[in-house]
Amino acid sequence: MSYETLLWDVDDDGVATLTLNRPDFLNAFTVTMARELEHVFLTDARDDDVRAVVVTGAGRAFCAGMDLAVEGNVFGLDESLAPTPEELRAHLDEQPYSDHVRDTGGRVTLAIHALPKPVIAAINGPAVGIGATMTLAMDLRLASASARIGFVFGRLGIVPEACSSWFLPRVVGLQQALEWIYSADVLTAEEALRGGLLRSTHAPEDLLSTAHRLARSFVTNRSPVALGLAKQLLYRNSASSHPLEAHLSDSLAMFYCSIGDGKEGVAAFLEKRTPSFKGRASALPRIFPE
Amino acid sequence: MSYETLLWDVDDDGVATLTLNRPDFLNAFTVTMARELEHVFLTDARDDDVRAVVVTGAGRAFCAGMDLAVEGNVFGLDESLAPTPEELRAHLDEQPYSDHVRDTGGRVTLAIHALPKPVIAAINGPAVGIGATMTLAMDLRLASASARIGFVFGRLGIVPEACSSWFLPRVVGLQQALEWIYSADVLTAEEALRGGLLRSTHAPEDLLSTAHRLARSFVTNRSPVALGLAKQLLYRNSASSHPLEAHLSDSLAMFYCSIGDGKEGVAAFLEKRTPSFKGRASALPRIFPE
Amino acid sequence: MSYETLLWDVDDDGVATLTLNRPDFLNAFTVTMARELEHVFLTDARDDDVRAVVVTGAGRAFCAGMDLAVEGNVFGLDESLAPTPEELRAHLDEQPYSDHVRDTGGRVTLAIHALPKPVIAAINGPAVGIGATMTLAMDLRLASASARIGFVFGRLGIVPEACSSWFLPRVVGLQQALEWIYSADVLTAEEALRGGLLRSTHAPEDLLSTAHRLARSFVTNRSPVALGLAKQLLYRNSASSHPLEAHLSDSLAMFYCSIGDGKEGVAAFLEKRTPSFKGRASALPRIFPE
Repeated sequence: MSYETLLWDVDDDGVATLTLNRPDFLNAFTVTMARELEHVFLTDARDDDVRAVVVTGAGRAFCAGMDLAVEGNVFGLDESLAPTPEELRAHLDEQPYSDHVRDTGGRVTLAIHALPKPVIAAINGPAVGIGATMTLAMDLRLASASARIGFVFGRLGIVPEACSSWFLPRVVGLQQALEWIYSADVLTAEEALRGGLLRSTHAPEDLLSTAHRLARSFVTNRSPVALGLAKQLLYRNSASSHPLEAHLSDSLAMFYCSIGDGKEGVAAFLEKRTPSFKGRASALPRIFPE
Repeated sequence: MSYETLLWDVDDDGVATLTLNRPDFLNAFTVTMARELEHVFLTDARDDDVRAVVVTGAGRAFCAGMDLAVEGNVFGLDESLAPTPEELRAHLDEQPYSDHVRDTGGRVTLAIHALPKPVIAAINGPAVGIGATMTLAMDLRLASASARIGFVFGRLGIVPEACSSWFLPRVVGLQQALEWIYSADVLTAEEALRGGLLRSTHAPEDLLSTAHRLARSFVTNRSPVALGLAKQLLYRNSASSHPLEAHLSDSLAMFYCSIGDGKEGVAAFLEKRTPSFKGRASALPRIFPE
Repeated sequence: MSYETLLWDVDDDGVATLTLNRPDFLNAFTVTMARELEHVFLTDARDDDVRAVVVTGAGRAFCAGMDLAVEGNVFGLDESLAPTPEELRAHLDEQPYSDHVRDTGGRVTLAIHALPKPVIAAINGPAVGIGATMTLAMDLRLASASARIGFVFGRLGIVPEACSSWFLPRVVGLQQALEWIYSADVLTAEEALRGGLLRSTHAPEDLLSTAHRLARSFVTNRSPVALGLAKQLLYRNSASSHPLEAHLSDSLAMFYCSIGDGKEGVAAFLEKRTPSFKGRASALPRIFPE
């Protein structure tokens, strides 16, 4: 599969590099890029040969935000509908995946979020608007010391999208999230690091190799099943109402590990050898209701 | 409208200053102050001419807590009811806004929370008990370097109120929240800053002007609709169970921005001019169920 | 009651010390230890003479994790069941406390979590696997500067258990939680402190006395009822969907304090004397539904 706006490359360790690839336009986000990003996370990235994904940008930017010069309807919404908020809300409640009103950025971040594998953002330059919010659905954010990150929606009369209001407070806390969204300023990498958005900053030339090394350390000699279930457990239970729900889901996950890769993992540990896991991320047991 | 315990002033930029005004009593909280605070946030602050609210105290204190010397029933509750906990819980479940048992501090913080505009605490001096917890429903907390903040409930045989158990862990994390509530100590501004409660500390003479400048930066040339919806999105989705809920609500919010102030915002951006927004915070679309 | 794997001691101030006591095995976790831990938190620790609990390890370790050399089925699960994930999930949904599939670590942390009293971890040495996750259900974590903490599940092909996916993101945020679970590294005390997992680190010889002093400061001249309700409020409302739920529960809690220990607390405050509280943690009113 070849993409118009993306590069996709998987190395021998199963670490994929996804490159936003419109360098002449600072990798600005288009409807085509949205469709391709959703596709790559729902198909290519789900291949069992892919163990982790590193996302970066071609050229000097990560993603300069929605390409306002290109899009017809810049938000990807069908204005002709013009229903009342109540009708729209009811429509989405009944058909949450209906195409009519869904924010394109959110389709992308839900696809990233649903991938049961580590996803690392390597923010190599400006990440603005959807360029900033798409990284929130990734698990860790590393950045070049010269990167800039801006939740600039407020300056355009629009709201933070792409499910960012779910992710941002869980990463940086409510007070910092509110200030960044209200100010709509472009942050330096140093400010974003101090505020807890970034995991670390790096010299530009070291960024991608550090992200790759980190991804490799997460997956080498690890069970894809245990890793995928752990990701689901952390996100879901960070938002579940009582520890008992975590107990039910982690008991199930542990049960299935204990009759699968966990058996090999413990044996290898006791025998002081490298484990050889057979589980596949494409065949995870369902540990949560619905 | 004139208040007995409050001063209310709105400047030309739409930045309101709300001053707790019982300086001879360190602005201690009374049932009258509770009613007036609830009123000001449900009426005056909802005027479209008001874009943001800064809350501070007259004289040397912010608010020294409940005025234990004044109140008959210090907690504002009707003891004669004396039902069982089960009866009370059932009563509140059916009539959550019933007056009989509701904590007065919580009535105030729910009114603050419901205002779809930035609210900034400028903590100029001691903020104790309800004086501390009321600031948790405000979006950002700035303090004088000489301020003191105390969640002192434990010393009085009572519990943290005013919905503080919802807000505090989301701002400072569970471990810090538990320690402060257990210790019931009065914190220095420096300790509160380090623990993540305060956004920043300032020389006493700079506090109010900094808070005003920050408020102004949030609202100048900004859409009141986009700002109000962004506030709702962040608070609600910080507590929603799945990113899909954020996707539904931010898609709706984005849809309504995109046929309103967002259209003007993008046009102004492309034309390199200052936007002229027409939306009103008093007419937000409903983006969440119920 | 005497335990095979634990020491239990309550001092005159009501501060209990619970010592994991298999020092020759680095206090490694066994099914016996799991049963004894669940028992001590559901019975001994619920005695009204116990006001707070400090948990530490005998010898040089805190707890080296599950004792993989001892256990038959290392995860305490009944493999012979081998139902489908859907059947298991349905089984747990109907009988959440059924013994068949429940993770033993989770049984322990749910028992710790349900204790309406401060629980402090004094991590004196290596805390690995269940040795690390059991501390997450404790309210505060203090550690020796030479302690090591490892969420090492990923290296064994298993998932983080003991409800850790509920607690960890609420203590350290999502990004840090994901990195530690993915990396499965053993952290130094300094790294764990910087990441927000630990409240503080101490010289080895000062650790236990500091934990005891802290516990004592939380309970001396405090109402066990107010303290127990405050703990419930913070945990439950950190995960409740709207501040209104906090308002209902804290109103109820405040009502019951106001006709009990709160009356004495306010009277003592006004009379500038030490309060004499009569409330008992074993008789808390029910402030949450179900």
